[in-house]
Amino acid sequence: MCPAPVEQDCQRGFIVPIGGGEDQLRDREILSRYLEMCGGSNAHIVVIPTASELDDTGARYQDLFRELGAGEVGILHCDNRKECNSQDFVDLLDRADGIFMTGGNQLRLSTTLGGTRVAQQIRRRNAAGMHVAGTSAGAAFVPEHMIAGGHEGSTPSPDMVTLAPGLGLTNRLIIDQHFRERERLGRLLTALAFNPFAIGIGLDEDTAAFIGPDDVMEVAGSGGITVIDPSELEFSSMDSARRDQPVSLIGIRMHILVAGGTYDLATRKARP
Amino acid sequence: MCPAPVEQDCQRGFIVPIGGGEDQLRDREILSRYLEMCGGSNAHIVVIPTASELDDTGARYQDLFRELGAGEVGILHCDNRKECNSQDFVDLLDRADGIFMTGGNQLRLSTTLGGTRVAQQIRRRNAAGMHVAGTSAGAAFVPEHMIAGGHEGSTPSPDMVTLAPGLGLTNRLIIDQHFRERERLGRLLTALAFNPFAIGIGLDEDTAAFIGPDDVMEVAGSGGITVIDPSELEFSSMDSARRDQPVSLIGIRMHILVAGGTYDLATRKARP
Repeated sequence: MCPAPVEQDCQRGFIVPIGGGEDQLRDREILSRYLEMCGGSNAHIVVIPTASELDDTGARYQDLFRELGAGEVGILHCDNRKECNSQDFVDLLDRADGIFMTGGNQLRLSTTLGGTRVAQQIRRRNAAGMHVAGTSAGAAFVPEHMIAGGHEGSTPSPDMVTLAPGLGLTNRLIIDQHFRERERLGRLLTALAFNPFAIGIGLDEDTAAFIGPDDVMEVAGSGGITVIDPSELEFSSMDSARRDQPVSLIGIRMHILVAGGTYDLATRKARP
Repeated sequence: MCPAPVEQDCQRGFIVPIGGGEDQLRDREILSRYLEMCGGSNAHIVVIPTASELDDTGARYQDLFRELGAGEVGILHCDNRKECNSQDFVDLLDRADGIFMTGGNQLRLSTTLGGTRVAQQIRRRNAAGMHVAGTSAGAAFVPEHMIAGGHEGSTPSPDMVTLAPGLGLTNRLIIDQHFRERERLGRLLTALAFNPFAIGIGLDEDTAAFIGPDDVMEVAGSGGITVIDPSELEFSSMDSARRDQPVSLIGIRMHILVAGGTYDLATRKARP
């Protein structure tokens, strides 16, 4: 799906994909910064633990945000598609300042939320100013085109990645997580090579992209973000390569950004 | 990418995916109807043969549309990404009443046109009333989420289909072609099961969906169109199935429509 239209005199909320494994014990820099942005002690945070198969994932993040001083923390137990079409769930999202989607399996998010009123309401509320963060699977689910799975390695090949429709908060990005830790350069390059319209961002663990309403993203956390810009691609063998063969790509632009670095998704300019 | 916004007092042009193998010798019903819609003897048709590896594909369709009485038929030779960013190509699209994308390999279209000015201009001109038709690979490329490849068979399994970003004229549909001829029910179901927000349409050969600005589609041609509506899905094992295992889906709605049948993509109602 596409992002909901932003009404006149409104600003889209921040979109905050996190690479997984964010610090939950020491400074908790990423989670603190996200909570602050949502209003701190006045913030109403809604945790969506649908990606996780563990029963206590929602409660764990609820405790974390409470410890950090959030005003109110609810859990949206989106376990099946019927619930995701209920008025109660839509109403809870109406009252939220920010939502947080946990890690797990992004296909649990897309198969459960996809096409329901909850998914539609998240897009609408984000367009009206509600912030949306997600870690690991929760980050992968954010854009229009979601990486559902794939193989490790740094050289792209056609069968290396599985793409599926995501939540659709942005159509400028394809997001991958645990990026350095799980050697995911190849699968992100493959996803971009299918259609070089998007920008790829590979998020290391404990690293977040804070993407503002102006589509400028700022890096926070202890790792790096790898930005892949295929807009000047001169040559690609993606259309002729066999499924397990390496793909040749000429003219990729790449940036590695760390905490404080920014990237403008509209102008495609990076600053350290 | 998302469809370009339709300006006030404008109507989107028709979107006409064709299942491949359209009659080019006898009545040529589908091509004639498309030409008529574009203005017949006043129509300026632009053929985009990028999907094809054969040198004469563009000229063949140029001859066909001329024989059918088109006013003017040009060929847009989009062979590389640099050309697809040229002003000449954008200008040619400005003068077209309808474009026609040939068959071949849809990855040639997405890797060459994706993210270029030509792709953007097709979206903008379609939103402003220009009609867009595509056959086989040209049909697959039309929506936001494109089936790039996959395996035959009627039972869905996670590794059965490869999705990639498409042109983005519509985000309501996922399109498959040569549907009955190549047993593609399983791969279309798989594509929808990843995220049940879209409607699937499986186009038999010599069969077209004429999708109007009101998002009502009408079937034309000698075969059928299989419509898959996953919006009432009650259960899916897509998030837990192994790559080559069958996927359980409960609550799929399916319609088979033939010539004259219609389907409203907004209300999801079929009529014979």
